[in-house]
Amino acid sequence: MRFTEDYFASQMRDITGSAIRDIFKLLGKPGMISFAGGNPSNRALEPERVRALAAEAIDRNGASLLQYGATEGLPGLRARIAAYLSDTAQVRCTAENILPVQGSSQAFDLLLKALINPGDAILVESPTFLGAIQAMRIYSANLIPMPMDEDGVIVEEVEALVKKHRPKLMYIIPTFQNPTGRTLSLERRRALAEMAAKYGFVIAEDDPYRDLRYAGDPLPSISSFDEEGWVVYMSSFSKYIAPGLRVGAAAVPDARLLRKMVIGKQSSDVHSPLLTQAIVELYLEKGLLPAHLERICGEYRVQMEAMLEGFAAFPEGTAHTVPEGGLFVWAQLPEGMNALEALNRAIEKNVAFVPGVHFYPEGGHENTLRLNFSMQEPEAIREGMARLGEALRGA
Amino acid sequence: MRFTEDYFASQMRDITGSAIRDIFKLLGKPGMISFAGGNPSNRALEPERVRALAAEAIDRNGASLLQYGATEGLPGLRARIAAYLSDTAQVRCTAENILPVQGSSQAFDLLLKALINPGDAILVESPTFLGAIQAMRIYSANLIPMPMDEDGVIVEEVEALVKKHRPKLMYIIPTFQNPTGRTLSLERRRALAEMAAKYGFVIAEDDPYRDLRYAGDPLPSISSFDEEGWVVYMSSFSKYIAPGLRVGAAAVPDARLLRKMVIGKQSSDVHSPLLTQAIVELYLEKGLLPAHLERICGEYRVQMEAMLEGFAAFPEGTAHTVPEGGLFVWAQLPEGMNALEALNRAIEKNVAFVPGVHFYPEGGHENTLRLNFSMQEPEAIREGMARLGEALRGA
Repeated sequence: MRFTEDYFASQMRDITGSAIRDIFKLLGKPGMISFAGGNPSNRALEPERVRALAAEAIDRNGASLLQYGATEGLPGLRARIAAYLSDTAQVRCTAENILPVQGSSQAFDLLLKALINPGDAILVESPTFLGAIQAMRIYSANLIPMPMDEDGVIVEEVEALVKKHRPKLMYIIPTFQNPTGRTLSLERRRALAEMAAKYGFVIAEDDPYRDLRYAGDPLPSISSFDEEGWVVYMSSFSKYIAPGLRVGAAAVPDARLLRKMVIGKQSSDVHSPLLTQAIVELYLEKGLLPAHLERICGEYRVQMEAMLEGFAAFPEGTAHTVPEGGLFVWAQLPEGMNALEALNRAIEKNVAFVPGVHFYPEGGHENTLRLNFSMQEPEAIREGMARLGEALRGA
Repeated sequence: MRFTEDYFASQMRDITGSAIRDIFKLLGKPGMISFAGGNPSNRALEPERVRALAAEAIDRNGASLLQYGATEGLPGLRARIAAYLSDTAQVRCTAENILPVQGSSQAFDLLLKALINPGDAILVESPTFLGAIQAMRIYSANLIPMPMDEDGVIVEEVEALVKKHRPKLMYIIPTFQNPTGRTLSLERRRALAEMAAKYGFVIAEDDPYRDLRYAGDPLPSISSFDEEGWVVYMSSFSKYIAPGLRVGAAAVPDARLLRKMVIGKQSSDVHSPLLTQAIVELYLEKGLLPAHLERICGEYRVQMEAMLEGFAAFPEGTAHTVPEGGLFVWAQLPEGMNALEALNRAIEKNVAFVPGVHFYPEGGHENTLRLNFSMQEPEAIREGMARLGEALRGA
């Protein structure tokens, strides 16, 4: 084709895809210990069980599972998800508020499509999930970073940013945040819900790690404090059951907003596959999730502990988070160190991570890095952290 | 929520969803004979076979089928689709050009996302597929209707529109078009491919009905005449295997354009479910499609013939298409008759159709209607056409 870059839609011209794609390409190298991804452990996946549930779903539904379905999703799945989110996270929802989608990524994309005009302000944690940054940039949103401490975003500073920027949306990952592993405190959850109602902005509460908790007590969602319907809660079964099924959900309190998201989904993929929806519906209906989560959380806890112990090999002055769950630990190297440069040395030693700079919408923070522990066995984690310590010390 | 309509993104404010949604709600009425939908026949669906293929796909791939996958799709599926489209439609492609997506709707949505800025001109057949009209409106495109005759769009008039509007894109359904059932002639296919290269615009060739042919000889795709890579060919297994699986594909000759579509998909749903992709891969690998298509085409042919015979009951002066395949017949009532009004009388008589006005981006054409024959048995088609004839004659 002879057309030039300006043939593309303006918002797509400067977007070249995930910045960490090149890192992922290296991970197939033999002997590589990768802390770079965010996948669940292969041991957490259950092909035999999914095989049986797929067969049962088809036996139960017959040809109707192969026909066109409603954009709004399978009614039984909507009801099961509503019950699950109400029970576990005190999300304010019934089946009518639930839109099953292809992972929480699609929930966020549909929310952006429904709400965002170019230039609209969106408050985001700094740092935040790379995929969300890209999605917001495709809608030409104006990303406003919110400063964080160990308990999540700092509410007083957030309120000043709200007054200044009058955002249409706040994007937040409240539990075991990607990339930091931090959890927003109870008081702050309540404060953000109240702030949304006071100033009138939507909160996109992205909570896909919530039930991967290895310590401490579960907290109610921001949605649980939402009296007026400003909080859209987004969940996913990618980390709990299987990412390859691509089943997640949005709980949308406002019927008009839900309708706009349905219209957006209608014209983007008509509906999600019925077979994968039905598999997750059966998984929930049979009550399989609690025991499964207990098993995988037990394994992930051991993996996380191995990683935390491994920081002993890191340069003196390194700080790191101590998450109560999730898939990630975040580290801050002594000032002046550069994780981007260290990555090359690490890859030579067959260990990989993601430099923190990629998670900051404003850039900078070259001395930070994200480490994932779910994809490696404890022994490999110990070995990888030792190698990484050497690489970071420039040895 | 207290926010008002202007809280929504500007392009979503006036969009209220499929205009025929209200018609579909009536179809559950007992005794209703519906010619309104576009679903495959339930008898064309194969739950037992899909059940076996799902099991085989999981046995073959194990946990990797449940993990995250590449946005670009399963490599084996890409190769199978490339071979299928090259063989059947002479699409110019190899596996590297293929992007498996969630039905051809998603292919078009990703193409729009990659290319369209608000106000960009898109040439469309008049009439054309309702879902595509909605998708283009969400991107605030400027839809330019192309006049048609029995052989599809009229090339000389199209060239004048191209010169006048300088479109970025042409959207066309060349084979057994939705809603008219018409097929673009061979010479016009070649002429459009040459015109795209001459003036520099992308053709979105949406061809999901192509292999549902009941008479006449297959024609090569527009893509087959595309020397320079301006034609994006979009296919789907919704009508051939099962819409509920949501598996379709785009064949994108230009690597940069494919990359932009991949980025768009990455941020909208990360990737399509692996299980449904693997089911279609196995379906193609085992060579099951030709015999299956032969069976369902035999049944659809009988259904179409029953419908065509039923026009004898329609008001004198009614014209209708005589398609060589697909799922739809298009009728034009005598001037002055109104299909929208007749729909109410038809529904009282327990028969439904879609008024043609909904398929015209420019509106009008109140005396046209679309009739689908795939969802009813021949006997019900005869009865429904008799009832409809009465309703149209105002009896």
